[in-house]
This record gives sequence, C-alpha cells and structure tokens, in this order.
Amino acid sequence: MVNCQPASEDTWRQKLWRIMRAALAAVDPEQAVLRFLGREGQHLRVGGTEYDLDRLERIYLVGAGKAAVPMAKAVCRLLGDALSAVVINVKRGYILPAEEMQAIQAGLRCPFEVIEAGHPTPDEAGLRGAQRMAQLLAGTTERDLVICVISGGGSALLTLPVEGVSLADLQALTDALLRSGATINEINTVRKHLSRVKGGGLARLAYPARVVALILSDVVGSPLDVIASGPTVPDPTTFADAWQVLARYSLLDKVPPQVRSYLERGVAGQAPETPKPGDPIFERVQNLIVGSNELAALAAVEQARKEGLNSLLLTTYLEGEAREVGKVAAALAKELLRNGRPLPCPACLVMGGETTVTVRGSGTGGRNQELALAAAIALAGWEGTMVGTLATDGSDGPTDAAGAIATGQTIHRAQELGLNPLAFLENNDSYRFFQALGDLVVTGPTNTNVNDLLFILGWQAG
Amino acid sequence: MVNCQPASEDTWRQKLWRIMRAALAAVDPEQAVLRFLGREGQHLRVGGTEYDLDRLERIYLVGAGKAAVPMAKAVCRLLGDALSAVVINVKRGYILPAEEMQAIQAGLRCPFEVIEAGHPTPDEAGLRGAQRMAQLLAGTTERDLVICVISGGGSALLTLPVEGVSLADLQALTDALLRSGATINEINTVRKHLSRVKGGGLARLAYPARVVALILSDVVGSPLDVIASGPTVPDPTTFADAWQVLARYSLLDKVPPQVRSYLERGVAGQAPETPKPGDPIFERVQNLIVGSNELAALAAVEQARKEGLNSLLLTTYLEGEAREVGKVAAALAKELLRNGRPLPCPACLVMGGETTVTVRGSGTGGRNQELALAAAIALAGWEGTMVGTLATDGSDGPTDAAGAIATGQTIHRAQELGLNPLAFLENNDSYRFFQALGDLVVTGPTNTNVNDLLFILGWQAG
Repeated sequence: MVNCQPASEDTWRQKLWRIMRAALAAVDPEQAVLRFLGREGQHLRVGGTEYDLDRLERIYLVGAGKAAVPMAKAVCRLLGDALSAVVINVKRGYILPAEEMQAIQAGLRCPFEVIEAGHPTPDEAGLRGAQRMAQLLAGTTERDLVICVISGGGSALLTLPVEGVSLADLQALTDALLRSGATINEINTVRKHLSRVKGGGLARLAYPARVVALILSDVVGSPLDVIASGPTVPDPTTFADAWQVLARYSLLDKVPPQVRSYLERGVAGQAPETPKPGDPIFERVQNLIVGSNELAALAAVEQARKEGLNSLLLTTYLEGEAREVGKVAAALAKELLRNGRPLPCPACLVMGGETTVTVRGSGTGGRNQELALAAAIALAGWEGTMVGTLATDGSDGPTDAAGAIATGQTIHRAQELGLNPLAFLENNDSYRFFQALGDLVVTGPTNTNVNDLLFILGWQAG
Repeated sequence: MVNCQPASEDTWRQKLWRIMRAALAAVDPEQAVLRFLGREGQHLRVGGTEYDLDRLERIYLVGAGKAAVPMAKAVCRLLGDALSAVVINVKRGYILPAEEMQAIQAGLRCPFEVIEAGHPTPDEAGLRGAQRMAQLLAGTTERDLVICVISGGGSALLTLPVEGVSLADLQALTDALLRSGATINEINTVRKHLSRVKGGGLARLAYPARVVALILSDVVGSPLDVIASGPTVPDPTTFADAWQVLARYSLLDKVPPQVRSYLERGVAGQAPETPKPGDPIFERVQNLIVGSNELAALAAVEQARKEGLNSLLLTTYLEGEAREVGKVAAALAKELLRNGRPLPCPACLVMGGETTVTVRGSGTGGRNQELALAAAIALAGWEGTMVGTLATDGSDGPTDAAGAIATGQTIHRAQELGLNPLAFLENNDSYRFFQALGDLVVTGPTNTNVNDLLFILGWQAG
C-alpha cells in the first residue's frame, strides 16, 4: 500500500479541469501555429528552418480545414504585410465574428479570401476555392513561399477533381465505395488518384516554390499522408492500387464512366501518377505538425505535474468500443489507488485516441461520455479514483458536452437520485445520465480537433 | 523517435516465452507456499511471524481448492513430522501421480487424507471432507496451529451447510440465484449465511487455535473475503443483506423452504451471524496470499528486465470484452514503438486480470487467444511490436492452449496462408487461427490459477 494523500473529490475535479484546459490550450489552432512560427524583422523561423523574407518574391497563404480561419489568422498576425495572397476554404459557419475577420483584413495588403464550403459533402464553393488556389500556385517560381494551413475536414473542403471528372462523379464514387465496405484507406487511395490536390497534388502545383505546410492533425497517430488526404505529402499508392480497390469490391461497372476511364488511362500510364516518396518536389516541402493528440496529451501531462500529480502518457493510439475501454480505464485507476502502479499516488495517466460506440439504444450520448459511464460502473465504491474524458473539439457525439467525469462515488450518487446506471448504458444515454449528476464536461466549441483524451486519476489509499 | 535496437522477431518470442515461464514459476503452488514458509529446527516462520513448534500441541493441515495437493505437499515437506492430521478437499482428478502421493505420505506420521470432490457442483464427497475438517477443528485448543491451504475452486469444494439445509437445497438455491441475474457477490452473500465454513466459518471452527491461511488467489484484485468465499476472513455482510438479495430478485417463495426458514431465523437473531470484522477470532488468524496475479505479473516484470527490456506493470485489474481490450493492447504497443512511451524501447508492458468473450460464433478459442487475434488485426504492419497472452492455468477457454502470440507480421503471414483474420474473429475461432500459424502458447496444465496475463512488447523503431 502506498502513501497517498487524502483530499476532497472537489480538489481533484478542479485539478482535472485545469489539466483539460491546458491540453486544449496546447492545440488551440492560432496558438499552435504561433508556437511553431517566429519572426524577427525580415527573418521567418518555421520549426528549425529560417526564411529570409528579403530573398522571397511572394508569400502565398492557402489551405483548408475546419480550423483554417484561426490558423490563417496566426500567419496573418506575423506576416500580414508580406503576404501576396490569402485563399482558404473553411467549413460553412466556421469563421470568426465579423469584427475579428475585419481586423485580420486590416493587417493585410491583399484580400483575405475565405470561402465557406460544404462539409462533409464537397460543393461548388469548395471547388471554386480550390481552383483559385491552383491558379495562384500555377504561377509560382522558386523564389516564392507557399504557406499551407491544413486541418480536419480538409479532404472534403479542398476538392479539385482531375480533368473530365465532376463533383457529382466524385460524390457517386464515394457513395459506392462507402456502401461496398471499403476501408477509409482504400477509399482515399481511389480519391487521391482522381484529385489534383490530394496525395501530394498541392505540393506539385506549388513547385518550384518552397512550401511550408502547417498541419493540425485530426487523425489518430497523425499519419501525414492521411490527414486531409495529404495534399503536401508523397502518396505511396498507385493507379493500380486504386483500380484493384474498385475490382475488389466489384465496383468497376458501378462507378461513373468518367471515373473508370480516367483510372484506366492512369493504369496505362496515360495520366499523371500522384507524386511518390523520393520525388524532388518534396525537397521543397516542409511538413510540420503544429497540433495533434500527442501535443495535447503532453501538455496535459505537464499540467498534471504542475498540479502535484505524478503523470504518464500511456498511448496516443487508443481505440476500441467505448464501454470496454472504460473498463480498462477503471482497471488502471484501481491499480493506481491500491498499489501505486505504474506511478505512486496522487497520479494521472493520460491516454489519447478515439473510441467508437456501437449504438443499440435510443438515448443521447457520445463515445467519451459512454466511456466515462462504463468506467463509473466499474469503479463503484472505489473512492479516491476518477476517470475523465474529453472530445477536444468540445462536442462529443451529437451533444453540447465534450465528455464527463466519473468517480468512485458516481454510481452511489446516481442511485440516490433513482437513476439506474446500467439502464442508461444499455440505452446509450450517457449524456442524460451525467447531466442529471452535473458531471458533464462542457467546454463549448474549441475551434480545434485532435480527437479525444482520457484521464485516469488515483489519489487516496483505499 | 527513440533509439530502439533492431533484432529478429524470434529473439523477442524467446524472451517473451522466458518472461511467461518466470511468471508461472512465481505462482507454482508448491513453490509459492515454500516462498512464504521457512523452518529452522523447531522454529516455523510464516511470512514475518515465528511459531515455536515446541510450544504447539498439535498442527493440523486442512484446506480445499484445485491446487490443494501441491500446496499441501509443500507444507508436508517442511512439517511432515510435526503434523497431527491432514485433510484436504481437491477437485476430482487434481491429485499427483500415485508415486508422488506415496512419497508425501511417507514423510508423515498421520494419514494424508485427500478427498476428491465435485466441482463446480458440490457433492457428498466434498461434504464428507468438510465434516471431517470441522470435526478436527472442533477439538482444538489455543496451543494448536491450523494451517489452511486455500485456492481457486475452494468455495464449491469446501461445502458444509448449516443445520437443516441439505446439499440439494444449496444447489437449488444456487440455480435460482444464477437464473435471477444476481451478481456473484450477491450469490455469495446468501451462501455465506447458509454455510458453517464460508465467510469466516472455518476460522470460527478452529478457534481458539491459531490459524495460518495460505491463499492462492484466483480472483482479480485478490479480495480475501471473495477467494473461496473467505473461510478464514471476516464477513462484512449480514443475514439482512442475504434476505434482501432474495427479496430483490423475487426469490423468497422460490428457494427451498429450509433455506428461507433458516435465513428468517437469522434475521430474527435466532441463528449465528457470520463472524464480523473486529471479531477476536481473527486476532488468532494470519491470512497470507502466497500466489496471485500480482505476484506473477511482478515476476514477469523482473524477468523482462533481466532480458534487457524496460518493463512496467500497468494493472492487475484488467477486465472487458477480449477483442476490445486487444485493441487497447495494440494502442499501447504502437506508442511504445513510435514514441517510446511510457518506456523507451525495447520495452515490455504487463497487464493482469481476466477479460470476457461474448460468444457469437461457433469456433474454438478462449479469451486470451481472442484478445491476441484482435491485437494482431490492429497491429497489422507494425513491425517491431508483439502482444502475448497467457491463461495461468494453462487452459484458455475449452482449449489446450494458454494463449497466443500476435506480432506486426501475423496478419501478413495469415493472408499468405489464405486465412481471413476478420472471419476467424467473427466466428470466435482464435484457436484455429493461431494453430494454423503455429503461434499458440502451449504450457500444458500448470496446477495453478491466478487469472490471465497480457504482455505488450515494442523493440524496433518503425
């Protein structure tokens, strides 16, 4: 038995809340970009690389994603006077208040072109924005710099089909692939070969300019070729791979004829392959992850230590059915409490990733809240433990909560209110369960998304 | 990216095999008892306590459980000449070869009474053995020492109903409780109040003798009052609790009338309560866990370190649906490999507990093998990772394998053999999947059971 300090549950709730806030602050899109960009006079620092603005002819700012506006805002704050053009595609409604938009524009000597586009279904607005970017990039020289801001949703928002293929064709293709049971990787293999921007296409358009891609990752593990379909990243897949995906799911006769004929030409070497690893294009490209689940999780660990807790990041690849992962979280909490493993109490374990919910009931909830409910059930009576969950975009499932807090007292408190925890879990009704207890985690929209975080605390010898 | 040393997968399989062997050796019933007992001349050391054999009148060895024979053997090796009587109940077939049984007897000056009894359904043989123990213990004085060996299965094997209640009554009660949906804790609350040995009953029978209980835990978390229904441990539950369980599940009119009337008398204070925490009986009792999931897991961590791996025990409370826990195991392996967290590679994380399988298919497998199959699917292509599983009794589900080994290459190798991993998982057919690959973990019967162990390895930068 280890020496754990007793304290009221409220103290630990407040600590956890500050830990969550620190995690979110680390991946705030504007702050995240500013953490990796610096400017002194005419010197621009990006990560470890320096750019001499005096030796650059033009600087373009392009990009797409739900966080495009705050990311672009950060770039404009630093480089406003030096930018030659700004064009970004953002999800409809994901802009800043008019006042703030005007303030950004005021710092620029070019138009702040923000195109509100369709997501998750691409639309003509997004297409127009992408065409505008392609037009800009087509005129670049090696004395130009293209800064590209990329975040979740960028794949749908940055759509530019190859010659002869329409938006409607792409939509019909995507529908057919989704219905066929193809994996998301397989779907992306096909779509990259029908796009002028995905799968390294944007980098090719920008060549020979230098490209700095600032990436806010919404994909577990942050694989660069997957986030927003990797517009500035080599594509390891081929036309033959794309063709095989359609063949594997018997879709060759079901996709639009323009799609089929373009892929056919590609396989025959009559259409340009996506740029591959080793292509000299990428010698001009710097891809930088400015925000990710990992960065948020590490910030949480740091804050936990400031709060006096021993802390450890266990994984950023978490997946699985939420209610089962909740049991594993409870198992980790029990070991913290009883045996001070893997860290002496008070301690906070952090896990990141994204779980799933197989919906069987008709309640209201999300994967994070359901995970917390399952953890609460497994932790009933285990005083001195806490499990907290957080969807970093502030919206877990179709709810206005980001997650929930479960403790060893949750089930007891629920029963006192006449709530049957198992019935709420059965009905996927975690939102209403935690709402009744006042244990929802509510952050409001965060303008960022780096998946989910899970916090496991133990503080008091049982 | 951390500095991980490359090496062939085989090296790591061999290391993992030695780690598994070390874990099993730590909980071998005979060795486990000898680790906690020592004798020098007429001094017997049990844990930190010393007993002067010259000041003891009689030493009795009693007990029950699947591991009762090897545990008793260890005690006989040390104290054979000093024992006045030996009576143990063991599951039918769980004895040693005749030669070994005779060798044990040869070291004694009393009969080595081993009763082979029914499990999981108690039978008359078990009842006779328990009566014989009760008869022995009834005659003890404070100058006597009772050594009690307790292991998994002890609850069914050590059955002694209260006056007026028959074995058949108990069986009918248990059937009704199981069908009602009562939890195992609720079932045990009722059964403890109908037994003369469970719930501290054995300690009361032995009083005023001193009692040393040597316990091999087969329950996750090793709660003393739950293992074999806690024959030497205070019972916090009451007749009123037992009555409420029957009422809660509307069983008061469905259980045998003798059961109902005995509990009714108990609630009215006309039958003896089980001994409670604080009862002076327990001042004479020393309960010692000689083997548990925790001890096995710690031995594994120690061996992993000897093998040159950084190692950490994450939990001994693991539970959840096996295939979902497998995804969490894979998530931990990925983080080890990619980011060297929570430990730099090469590293081995250890988790203990017991997962469950919701059977939907018609295949052959067990929770450990199914966990490994799910982990293999999630780890496809992640070279430099390994997940291994082990049922410490050597038999996972209804199979002759204890678990399986999954690596980043498993799925590729399976596909080369024409096996569809998802189809095997769907059909709960993990045994045949790993059998085809030669990746089953086969230990043979281990004569011990401290639930399951899960090993997560990462060794090579991806």
